[in-house]
Amino acid sequence: MKINQIDRTLNRIRDALEAGKVDEAIKFLDRLYPPDLADAFSDLDDEDQAVLLPQLDISTTADLLEELDDEEAADVAGALPTDRLADVLDEMEPDEAADVLGDLPPKRTAEALAEMEDIEEVLPLLKHADETAGGLMTTSFIALTPKTAASEAIGLLRKVKPESEIPYYLYVEDDNGRLIGIVGLRELVLADPDDRILSIMDTEVFYGTISMDQEDAARMMARYDLAALPIVDDQGVLQGVITHDDLVDIIDDEATEDIYRLANVSDADLTINSPVTIQIKRRLPWLYLNTLTALFAAWVISHFEALYAQMALLAVFQSVVTGMGGNAAQQSLAMIVRAIALHDISPHNIPRTVINQAITGLLQGVAVGVFVGLGVYLWAHDILLALILCTALIGNMFVAVIIGTLIPLALKVLKLDPALASTVLVTAITDSFGFFLFLGLASIFLH
Amino acid sequence: MKINQIDRTLNRIRDALEAGKVDEAIKFLDRLYPPDLADAFSDLDDEDQAVLLPQLDISTTADLLEELDDEEAADVAGALPTDRLADVLDEMEPDEAADVLGDLPPKRTAEALAEMEDIEEVLPLLKHADETAGGLMTTSFIALTPKTAASEAIGLLRKVKPESEIPYYLYVEDDNGRLIGIVGLRELVLADPDDRILSIMDTEVFYGTISMDQEDAARMMARYDLAALPIVDDQGVLQGVITHDDLVDIIDDEATEDIYRLANVSDADLTINSPVTIQIKRRLPWLYLNTLTALFAAWVISHFEALYAQMALLAVFQSVVTGMGGNAAQQSLAMIVRAIALHDISPHNIPRTVINQAITGLLQGVAVGVFVGLGVYLWAHDILLALILCTALIGNMFVAVIIGTLIPLALKVLKLDPALASTVLVTAITDSFGFFLFLGLASIFLH
Repeated sequence: MKINQIDRTLNRIRDALEAGKVDEAIKFLDRLYPPDLADAFSDLDDEDQAVLLPQLDISTTADLLEELDDEEAADVAGALPTDRLADVLDEMEPDEAADVLGDLPPKRTAEALAEMEDIEEVLPLLKHADETAGGLMTTSFIALTPKTAASEAIGLLRKVKPESEIPYYLYVEDDNGRLIGIVGLRELVLADPDDRILSIMDTEVFYGTISMDQEDAARMMARYDLAALPIVDDQGVLQGVITHDDLVDIIDDEATEDIYRLANVSDADLTINSPVTIQIKRRLPWLYLNTLTALFAAWVISHFEALYAQMALLAVFQSVVTGMGGNAAQQSLAMIVRAIALHDISPHNIPRTVINQAITGLLQGVAVGVFVGLGVYLWAHDILLALILCTALIGNMFVAVIIGTLIPLALKVLKLDPALASTVLVTAITDSFGFFLFLGLASIFLH
Repeated sequence: MKINQIDRTLNRIRDALEAGKVDEAIKFLDRLYPPDLADAFSDLDDEDQAVLLPQLDISTTADLLEELDDEEAADVAGALPTDRLADVLDEMEPDEAADVLGDLPPKRTAEALAEMEDIEEVLPLLKHADETAGGLMTTSFIALTPKTAASEAIGLLRKVKPESEIPYYLYVEDDNGRLIGIVGLRELVLADPDDRILSIMDTEVFYGTISMDQEDAARMMARYDLAALPIVDDQGVLQGVITHDDLVDIIDDEATEDIYRLANVSDADLTINSPVTIQIKRRLPWLYLNTLTALFAAWVISHFEALYAQMALLAVFQSVVTGMGGNAAQQSLAMIVRAIALHDISPHNIPRTVINQAITGLLQGVAVGVFVGLGVYLWAHDILLALILCTALIGNMFVAVIIGTLIPLALKVLKLDPALASTVLVTAITDSFGFFLFLGLASIFLH
């Protein structure tokens, strides 16, 4: 469904609601696929949402909660009466239900759990940290023993709700529940009904552990083209499965986080349409940090204040030095942050990478420095100023590129996010050092 | 396999090669999964690669070509004798083989095609543009008619090479080859052998078209949790399938492109370890563009040159105004570029988004302006300078956030990449306008 089709449906729903025809509005909503349903619902204003929500049936409400953003899902779940919420949670995939329960106030969570029917699948998921493989996996999977016959496995498959996340693989456990193999649906299709699972299972299994970072689990799935990743505990006992629908969400979140952090927005849940108060709360602290570094750079400049009386042109060109340092650093910063995210950098490569970037920075500095130097000489006919500018640009861009490469690597070594605060640190250094170098050179040579 | 395990294997391979034991080196390589094999191979130096390549068997070479970056794959393919290259291409997935053929010189492509055995699957793929769904799909899929029995479908499945991209779905065509339904492997497992496909197929099929942008195809798969997306031509005739292993690659590439472009690196194929000459070639043009905008900002400043003699402190604080404008704009820019990439913005939302950001920009401007104004008053005891700084910060940050929001939207409307050149444009405006506003206010109030 295209976005303009969603828009059209949305207009019809609004018209129907305005005319008081709630049933008709619901009919339009029911025609939508779950992701479109969630988009349409969250585009309605609060009043329309409040009218519609109690009228949606259990399974539509479950679809809605599965597809909404965490915050909106918690709001909607919070608005449902407890018995209805329990029915909706029973209908949802266990991992999605656990996510919603985790975002509710603890009292509400306990009440909902008390009224739910199938809590044995949801309960174990509630105890895992949000950003780990355990917090992401679902407990709805099919486990077999090596002695199971192919026909029995097919019988088990028959019992799974047809609309649930499709299990591409069945998992094989030993007597202690330890994961020892997988069977793909294709192998099951092609097997003789009497074949034992032992003879058709694949024993080379990729698996993750409960406490591993969800991004590492996703990168493993992406790297080895896995449609699902079984997750085991410390004893190797199968606890759950991460399915491929979660994979893209994590990879998108990871990229959003890097893009935001490089632009000094630390919270990947913030969107361009978040309320103004939230925008300010999440963005202003970073701007204040930037303000402090900008004032520090101003303090560096203030030591050279007397120079401007001697040569006002310094004030005209000083920002070219700092600006170009920042631009050059930003390029290296973006590339190294991305390389780290995509696991494209390995420890033995680091010295080569840094040298490669340093040479690049130096050559770019020379290219820009000579260009600006020539331009300023033609503009202001001041050979000394041109030489000082050229030298300062080379020095600052060289240092900038090295700093832009080293800071994310250092953050990674310290087990911090390489993108976090990189931009602030890099800007602080390229600004302060750039001003110092340019004005310092000027003060030496103009005296 | 963990990165340090790859490193260990790599060291063993290097040791074996140094000792002249090529067979042993190959034994180590053969133990690796294809993505690790490709990483290990591309980490070896050119000399070692040249020794190993002719000794790898056809299927290992095919794995290697499937997993290497486009550029490296073309280099390796170029180094193989034509008859061997043809054998390797025959062994590869058709879509991957077509990619390699497309990156070779035309003469070499023709020679390889002449010696290949299975060209009917590869040939149609060569004519589609690289960034489209047609250029991404594979032609290896299983097509059925509605009258096929489930048992016959299973027979067809038996004929597919077991190591090929797993077909989670079989596709159903009418007499004219038009796509009319899909059958999941699960439905096939559960069906009675005599069931006709007609009775078990799903007729609500998501599909893409040959000419659609590959990112749109990937976003469709991600949105609706599709493990595979059938691709049809203008007549609705099934031409190929995009499989889920391509999905993550496109989503990663899309994010890399945005991260790079926001940092003024236009080529997403560039990596932090690309050779210095390539780094310069792809990065320097953007830095020159930045240089021109920095010089334009300097030209704006130069109109106020006489002011510095009157008040050198202006030169100390002017960069705070432009820098903070740039920082505030960059936040909005990152969020809107990401929202557009994730299709999180719809046309009727745009006015609300712009107003939301404008208010945010104004409030952040006031917060930072008052903070800096107070700080500078305490520092320099100059109430006039403090007021001018505060006003200029509010004005520049307000405009910056609006510009940072509008430019990507405008580029999107013009059907250009919203991230392309956004940063250069935004920086040019926040710098020039910031200097103009600050120094302009100063020249009015200091006279």
